[in-house]
Amino acid sequence: MRNLGIDIGGTKISFVLLKNGKIAESWKTLTPKTKRALIDIVKNNIPEETERIGIGLPGPLNEKGDLVLNPPNLKALWNCPLAKIIERETGIKTKMENDVNCFTLGEALVGAGKGAETVLGITLGTGVGGGIVIDGRIYRGAFGAAGELGHMTIKFDGPRCSCSSFGCLEEYCSERFFLKKGGLPQKFYDDAEKGDKKALKIYNEYGKYLGIGLANVINLLDPEVIVIGGGIANAYKLFVKEMEKEIRKRVISPVSKKYVKIKKAALNGLGGAVGAALLWQK
Amino acid sequence: MRNLGIDIGGTKISFVLLKNGKIAESWKTLTPKTKRALIDIVKNNIPEETERIGIGLPGPLNEKGDLVLNPPNLKALWNCPLAKIIERETGIKTKMENDVNCFTLGEALVGAGKGAETVLGITLGTGVGGGIVIDGRIYRGAFGAAGELGHMTIKFDGPRCSCSSFGCLEEYCSERFFLKKGGLPQKFYDDAEKGDKKALKIYNEYGKYLGIGLANVINLLDPEVIVIGGGIANAYKLFVKEMEKEIRKRVISPVSKKYVKIKKAALNGLGGAVGAALLWQK
Repeated sequence: MRNLGIDIGGTKISFVLLKNGKIAESWKTLTPKTKRALIDIVKNNIPEETERIGIGLPGPLNEKGDLVLNPPNLKALWNCPLAKIIERETGIKTKMENDVNCFTLGEALVGAGKGAETVLGITLGTGVGGGIVIDGRIYRGAFGAAGELGHMTIKFDGPRCSCSSFGCLEEYCSERFFLKKGGLPQKFYDDAEKGDKKALKIYNEYGKYLGIGLANVINLLDPEVIVIGGGIANAYKLFVKEMEKEIRKRVISPVSKKYVKIKKAALNGLGGAVGAALLWQK
Repeated sequence: MRNLGIDIGGTKISFVLLKNGKIAESWKTLTPKTKRALIDIVKNNIPEETERIGIGLPGPLNEKGDLVLNPPNLKALWNCPLAKIIERETGIKTKMENDVNCFTLGEALVGAGKGAETVLGITLGTGVGGGIVIDGRIYRGAFGAAGELGHMTIKFDGPRCSCSSFGCLEEYCSERFFLKKGGLPQKFYDDAEKGDKKALKIYNEYGKYLGIGLANVINLLDPEVIVIGGGIANAYKLFVKEMEKEIRKRVISPVSKKYVKIKKAALNGLGGAVGAALLWQK
């Protein structure tokens, strides 16, 4: 089986060709601005041998999953039945799915969560995203919206979120947390690497909030593995200690607390594309 | 099929005899204080025709589900392999399960959640409990601890909980919420029924907190139906409005927000025993 996985982001598109479930090749292009250019660039990047295509997109999709709705970072594809168009124009069977679900599926099947029955994926970047994989399949929930970790309330009287609610995890664990402290995550990472105490403290605080959010997930969903991805996960070593401390404090089951595995993503930013290719797995 | 469901609580035991999935009979006894007396009273309440037995208990059980650990309200059964004992002494196949999981299963299969694929059950009483049923089966999580709603953090700098963490839902949505206001839920219910403004306001505040907790569950799990049970659910009409308002504010998916069904439990306090009987269903 030769499956092509495509992860379409706001600025770049990642391609991964899987042969019998293994990464044979991967490459990237920039994301064009118009729908037609985007469809053409996707088509031009499909290797001859491709048997199936999977596409990951920065959601939201409609409930059935066959229509891109209104992703703020991908206006070219608003209201576009992208998979159907690619399938019609190439003759190759094509599926599409929310990119965080793809990330979680990729990490669950061949990445950091390999072998686990229940995997929760969380991505930490400009926003906070989440996905759930149970028994090797994406758990989409009743209305296709499961895994919306970013808007979990962790302090109901906390700061207002972009969603207009208050005290959402995203206010504490996305890039916005660092911006409120005066810089991008990378700036504080560089400072921390140089031993800057303020930057180290900021990452400790970040870890605490992430631990609170993950403890909620563990209490409710009791996953076997949690995989942490997204740009901020590169600073894993700077927040892991406080994160784990908070989880120990807030998870109620002593068994879950002891055995849940929390891991950094293993697929090096390709989880989304790999998971997209694996949409055809089951 | 004639299944007997037994819901063992700290003060009383409920029995339900199901014939072909329908309640044929139900009755109650008091819970004896010693293990031997408890086993005997269970045995004396097994009708001749019983083919299978299911038992619900106020958790926790071990990971495999065949040993009662240390339920604070049921010391007689600490470290007791109850199902195995009943099975050995009666010759009738017996299973056991956490009572909130039984409640959710009962409501999901034949109660307020009938026909739904994903049901979340929540019980509001001396504590706050939760259970998850997916495709007609209890979802236990990787380590048997899924559904621990009571210890979800909704205000990380909130009051200390009995679990020694801070700002758990249980501090805001169990009986303890009312005790801190100076009385039992029933007292404020009676006052509210007489039009007492303070009591009405207390139930409004309660509804707000419950809505915050349920919004978190909807964002993460996206269930089709949420069933609310436990003693405090009797005051449903007093808190439903504020609860729904908060859910509208905090759920991110417009589809889930619109279609999720939130319902009062339908099995009249028998959900636990009915669900226990249905442990043999699949």
